[in-house]
Amino acid sequence: MTDTIELVVCCDENYMPPLRTMLMSVVINNPGERFRLWLLHSTVGARALEELDSYCSLLGMRFDAVTVDREAFEEARSSKRYPQEMYYRMFAPRMITEAHSRLLYLDPDILVINPLRALWEIDLEGNSFAAASHLDAVHPATALNKVRLDTDHQYFNTGVILMDAEAARKVIVPSELLEYAQDHEYSILFPDQDLFNALYGCYTLAVKDVLWNYDARKYADYYLRTMGSSTMQWVMANTSILHFCGREKPWQQGYSGRFDALYKNYDQVAQRAFARAVAQG
Amino acid sequence: MTDTIELVVCCDENYMPPLRTMLMSVVINNPGERFRLWLLHSTVGARALEELDSYCSLLGMRFDAVTVDREAFEEARSSKRYPQEMYYRMFAPRMITEAHSRLLYLDPDILVINPLRALWEIDLEGNSFAAASHLDAVHPATALNKVRLDTDHQYFNTGVILMDAEAARKVIVPSELLEYAQDHEYSILFPDQDLFNALYGCYTLAVKDVLWNYDARKYADYYLRTMGSSTMQWVMANTSILHFCGREKPWQQGYSGRFDALYKNYDQVAQRAFARAVAQG
Repeated sequence: MTDTIELVVCCDENYMPPLRTMLMSVVINNPGERFRLWLLHSTVGARALEELDSYCSLLGMRFDAVTVDREAFEEARSSKRYPQEMYYRMFAPRMITEAHSRLLYLDPDILVINPLRALWEIDLEGNSFAAASHLDAVHPATALNKVRLDTDHQYFNTGVILMDAEAARKVIVPSELLEYAQDHEYSILFPDQDLFNALYGCYTLAVKDVLWNYDARKYADYYLRTMGSSTMQWVMANTSILHFCGREKPWQQGYSGRFDALYKNYDQVAQRAFARAVAQG
Repeated sequence: MTDTIELVVCCDENYMPPLRTMLMSVVINNPGERFRLWLLHSTVGARALEELDSYCSLLGMRFDAVTVDREAFEEARSSKRYPQEMYYRMFAPRMITEAHSRLLYLDPDILVINPLRALWEIDLEGNSFAAASHLDAVHPATALNKVRLDTDHQYFNTGVILMDAEAARKVIVPSELLEYAQDHEYSILFPDQDLFNALYGCYTLAVKDVLWNYDARKYADYYLRTMGSSTMQWVMANTSILHFCGREKPWQQGYSGRFDALYKNYDQVAQRAFARAVAQG
């Protein structure tokens, strides 16, 4: 028997439908696995939490909500520019004090289309985190980000972060994080990503985005970058995490793209299951 | 509690992988339904039948194979041009003597992406069958087919046929079917479809192809025909049966199309489940 895969999400009520779609894709593509979902939030209402709990039960997934005390957090905040939720994913290992294994943070604008176990069990080689970059080492933005954030590693996308809970707790110092945000208030472009990269990028193992954080907008880019080997056949057989990055989301009107039908079918399966879960109570 | 939906397929061993993909899509998109699968065949080996049985068990689906006596059938055959399997779907109501309700014949190059119950329970209005046409009433091929086959109804696609077993038994006279095939040996273009249309088209209720037999090659055609209302959003919420008609199949190298990622993900989920089913025995 293998261990439970512990998923972490941080979102508000608006993101409940895509979250459900993401969870459905996790379950369909990971038969035989046990999952536990941690939701870190401060504004999701009691009813939405109950409904999410019913939905997770239907999926055979354990569910725990961690309510972040908004006021206590408010005093510690350094900046008014960013919602405090941006910090939650980075504080997950500290907030989920029960966690002694690993945690897998996932954005809700994701489909999981193949097993997650190989990522869950990856050798972190002494690092606290694993994440993927959407930018090649030779991409001009990579050099710019290195100068901008004074780092010497890739610029990681923070939509998927594997965390070693114990190791991460040692690295994450809340006061340091808040201080950094304060000091760099006007130079930060992508708050959640910039902070993660500046402070924790050096403790992060780089994993392949084409497997673990595939940017769903960039089918043609990946195809070219891999010299034609990442065909749709290859992607659907090997990529585990499809990330619908960017402004245009597949649950919105007018979206189109290579993975449009795929997303919308999962969405349909998820919302149908949700209706049943809520009806059963 | 609703009744079991009885599915009929007719294929050889080469079609086992797409058949498994089709069945997976049926189950994922029809939660709460019970299904029974009837396989009409004459050449599928004992091992493949056992494996399909294990797979159906894993899906919670009852499975029955009906072996057609090839030799007995051989004597009755009128033509050497067509494989005898082409007759099986039309003889299904006679071969499955236990069936007292309805039967839903499905080609294996199909994905079921929404519930089937509304088709299963459709009012047949006194007809023995229900099927969809892929050609508009005003399409030139429709007029041609009417003259060619001496019919005054639409030209039905036979990839999806709902049958009222009792009513169909009265209409289907094997000798008549074989005689027709013999008499029209050289004028028949699409053997399974031409025979069905010529002999049983007049007993067939026309249902909407956009719902029950959507030609997956023709997204743009449907979009135009419905004056822009059948968007991908609409299709994924309303269409129940996606049919990958034509020569190019989504499980073959080089295929591409709007539903490519969708098909390949179901294929992946199905083949993964099949490996588990076979391992468990």
